[in-house]
Parts: sequence; C-alpha cells; structure tokens
Amino acid sequence: MDRKQLFEQIQQKRGFLCIGLDTDVHKIPPALKDASDPVFAFNQEIIDATHDLCVAYKPNVAFYESLGAAGWLSLEKTVRYIREKYPEQLVIADAKRGDIGNTSGLYARAFFEKMDVDAVTVAPYMGEDSVKPFLAYPGRWVIVLALTSNKGASDFQFLRSEAGLLFESVLKTSQKWGTPDNMMYVAGATRAQKLKEVRELAPGHFLLVPGVGAQGGSLQEVARYGMNAQCGLLVNSSRAIIYASDGADFAQKARDAATDVQLEMEGLLLEAGLL
Amino acid sequence: MDRKQLFEQIQQKRGFLCIGLDTDVHKIPPALKDASDPVFAFNQEIIDATHDLCVAYKPNVAFYESLGAAGWLSLEKTVRYIREKYPEQLVIADAKRGDIGNTSGLYARAFFEKMDVDAVTVAPYMGEDSVKPFLAYPGRWVIVLALTSNKGASDFQFLRSEAGLLFESVLKTSQKWGTPDNMMYVAGATRAQKLKEVRELAPGHFLLVPGVGAQGGSLQEVARYGMNAQCGLLVNSSRAIIYASDGADFAQKARDAATDVQLEMEGLLLEAGLL
Repeated sequence: MDRKQLFEQIQQKRGFLCIGLDTDVHKIPPALKDASDPVFAFNQEIIDATHDLCVAYKPNVAFYESLGAAGWLSLEKTVRYIREKYPEQLVIADAKRGDIGNTSGLYARAFFEKMDVDAVTVAPYMGEDSVKPFLAYPGRWVIVLALTSNKGASDFQFLRSEAGLLFESVLKTSQKWGTPDNMMYVAGATRAQKLKEVRELAPGHFLLVPGVGAQGGSLQEVARYGMNAQCGLLVNSSRAIIYASDGADFAQKARDAATDVQLEMEGLLLEAGLL
Repeated sequence: MDRKQLFEQIQQKRGFLCIGLDTDVHKIPPALKDASDPVFAFNQEIIDATHDLCVAYKPNVAFYESLGAAGWLSLEKTVRYIREKYPEQLVIADAKRGDIGNTSGLYARAFFEKMDVDAVTVAPYMGEDSVKPFLAYPGRWVIVLALTSNKGASDFQFLRSEAGLLFESVLKTSQKWGTPDNMMYVAGATRAQKLKEVRELAPGHFLLVPGVGAQGGSLQEVARYGMNAQCGLLVNSSRAIIYASDGADFAQKARDAATDVQLEMEGLLLEAGLL
C-alpha cells in the first residue's frame, strides 16, 4: 500500500486508527479458551468487529513469540486472515528488529515474504545497514523508532550531540536512506509537544503514534502537533480497545471503544479540512 | 550459569569460543536436505562436532524467523538439544530485542521461559524499561548492544554528547540497571582499539565479540584490548566455522576450523596467565 492509498483509506474510514493486536493469552475471555487456537480466534472476532473503523492492525510480535512456535503460527494465521478478508488494511508487525545488514535482510524476509505484512518497526541503534534491507521491498514500509513513549526513552533518545538530540539525529540521518513513501517513524504520544519537533524534521512522513489511551497521551494534542496535509498519522490503540470487556461481549465492546476513537478522529480530520 | 562457572568453562575448554548458529537453509549440505528438519539436523551435527571446543552457542534468531513458525520449531529443538546433551554450554539467543517494559517482559518470557536460553541480546535505544525485564531472571544474562561491528555502527553509536559517545553512555547508564553478574555487552571486533575504551568503562563485564573472521577482526587484538582477570571475553565465529565446507565433510571441517580458533585462544589465555 502506498502513501496515497493510505490517505484514501483514512478519508474513507474517516479516521486514522491503528488497532494494536497485543493479544495476551491470559486475557482472552473464557468463552474462547476452548478454541483450537484461542489467540487467533480472539483476533478474528476483534478484527471482524472493528475493520470498518480502522486503517491498520498492528500485532505486537512479542505477545506471539512468548508462546513459542505455536504463537508464531497464531500470528501467521492472523496476518493471513486480515490479508484475505480485509486487503485494504495496512498490517504492521511491531517487531522492533535491527541487526547487521545480512541479518536484517533475513528479518525483512521473515516479515515481508514469509509473513506478508506491509510494515515492520525497526530500532535504529545499529544504523544504516540495519534499516536498509527493509527498504528493498517495493510497496512495503519500514517504521523507524525515533521517539518512543516509554519512560526509558529519556535515557538515550534525548542525549544532545552536535547533530541535536539523538532522536533528531535519527530523524535526519534516516531520511538519507528512505523517503516518505517507504519510511515512517514511531513518535510517542506521551510527549505530544515533542511531536511538533518530529513533524518539523519529517514534514512528509507518516508517524505511528503509540501511547494514546493506556499510556496517557491525548489524541487532540497528537493531531494538533502531528497532522500534515495527508493526515500523516496512524494512532495506535491496543488495550483500551481489545480488552474493553473481558466478558462474552468483548467484540461488541471493542467495536464501541473503536467507534469512540474513530468519531473523535473524524472531528479532528474535519477540523483540519481533510474530509 | 553464573560468571564464575563461565570462567571455569573457559579454563576447562582452554578457549572462549562462541559458535554462531547462523544456519541458512540455503547453505545446508545436500546430504541433509532430505532430513525432516534440515536446519535442526545440520545444527545437531555441528554441535556434536564442536561442543568440546567452545563454551557457548549463539543461534541468530533471524535465520530461524525467516522460515516462519517452522523455523521457530527448529530453533526450539536446537536449544533443547544443547540443553539436554551439553548442559555446560551457555546458550545465547541473538535476538536484539527491546520494547516498552511490559513488552520486553514478554520477550524475556519467550526466551527465558518458553525457549530456556541463558542469554538474550538486547538493543538499548528504548532505555531502562526495555532492558530491565530481562534482568528479573536469576542465573540469566542480558547482553546489551554497546558497540556493534557493522558499518552502520558509526551512524549513531559515535555521536558525542556531554556523557561521551553514545556507546559510552550506554555502557555507563546500563551499569545502573545490571551488574557484571547478569549483564554483558556486545562489542564488535572490527574496531579493536575501541574495545580498550569499552573495557575501561566496563572492567568486570563479559564482552560478546562478533566480527572476528568473516567481518575482519583479529583475535589477538581482541585479547590484547578486551581480556580481564576472568577472561571476560566470548568471541563469536559463525560462518568461518559452520560453513567451513559445503560437502559431506562439513561437520569435520567445522571441527577443524573451531580447533584452529580454540588453539589460538589457548595461546592467548596462557600468555595472560589465565590457564
């Protein structure tokens, strides 16, 4: 999916919601525990109940990996399900990979060829050759960690060198490797004013924004500081949607929670003149 | 395995060799291609042929992940095989993970509980809460990327702030989180003189050193700059050992290549008065 198509999806869905499939086997409603693959069964119901309200799904790979090979199977099935039933969705593997060139190439193969997702999150610590192999796939995206939403973000991302703060260096240097058409950035919502700086340094790139909701960020602030002429935002919500209820009504409640976010996003898009 | 036991293993094996199980399904000798799990069959033969010459095995997770769930199964079987047959070996999952706290906790669960390895490599970009969950497992190790051996290392790891170069900041800050008894560092051999700085900043920690051999580093220089009173080094070699031959004699040739490295290490340990 290219940038234009993504913006069209945002206009069509009237929102820029990414739903995080952080599916914890311990939080799955009792009714699904007897399914042959409870994680996949849960994801199917969540996806069926929310697909018209979001433009992207973002499975967090750690949740699946923690179940070993069986978890990888659930993840593969989930991606295939979205691909086949809702091909208009952007599928993001939140994997935060990154290694020397030939090894990153294998991660790219894992996610783009074997698993067939649209985008992978990548950590920038190892520099150019750790990111570039992901850019060799036309129509796919690499999402580079710039400014994360966690407490530890301040340990290194705010160190100031001649090139600016570390996350600013990442934004500047990585733009030599990729373009707004194949590279996005992770920019956390818990530091919304910082989004302004990110947006100034990367005016055309889509930003994947975690940390709204459970982690405390405000959607309005994210839109104020981060929106550009093609929206340029994918705001992720995981727990607040997929665990909106732990009862038999979990899918309906997930839909309700996603609707609330979509409607707020619709208002923000209208305000910005993008609908 | 604790630090004392690791040093004892080094003295017993008369070397500090870590063999990288970067098992590429396309490079497996023809004789094994018909095995039910060629990757596992290859690993078994390599391990059986080399276990008395090394102190650690380091599967590079990307190689397995690129095969999807089936690759994860091969990896799980490989780790179990080492655990059961050669329990004296340190098993390192070279995974370079790192995410917000609760997600890193799931990666720790994946590797320490589900897969039962001794150590995991972790990227530091996201700071303290991305690393700490791995430190909650007694007897296990986190191996933090400090100075990597690839070309892209210079993009960010050498940015200078008030706290020094970025890799120096990582070395200093991360020592507030873990100790030489549960934390090691990745320090590439392609910049051997830099190892001296790493060693000064982390005198007691074990260093996992990639980049000897195929990537161009010299073992003698690594020992000169990186060795401490408990050796403090695990030097990894992957391709030069496991692909020493692509014929039917691959296991014997791997043994020969590992023997060459072990003998050179023995000389260096003797020189340092550690044997």
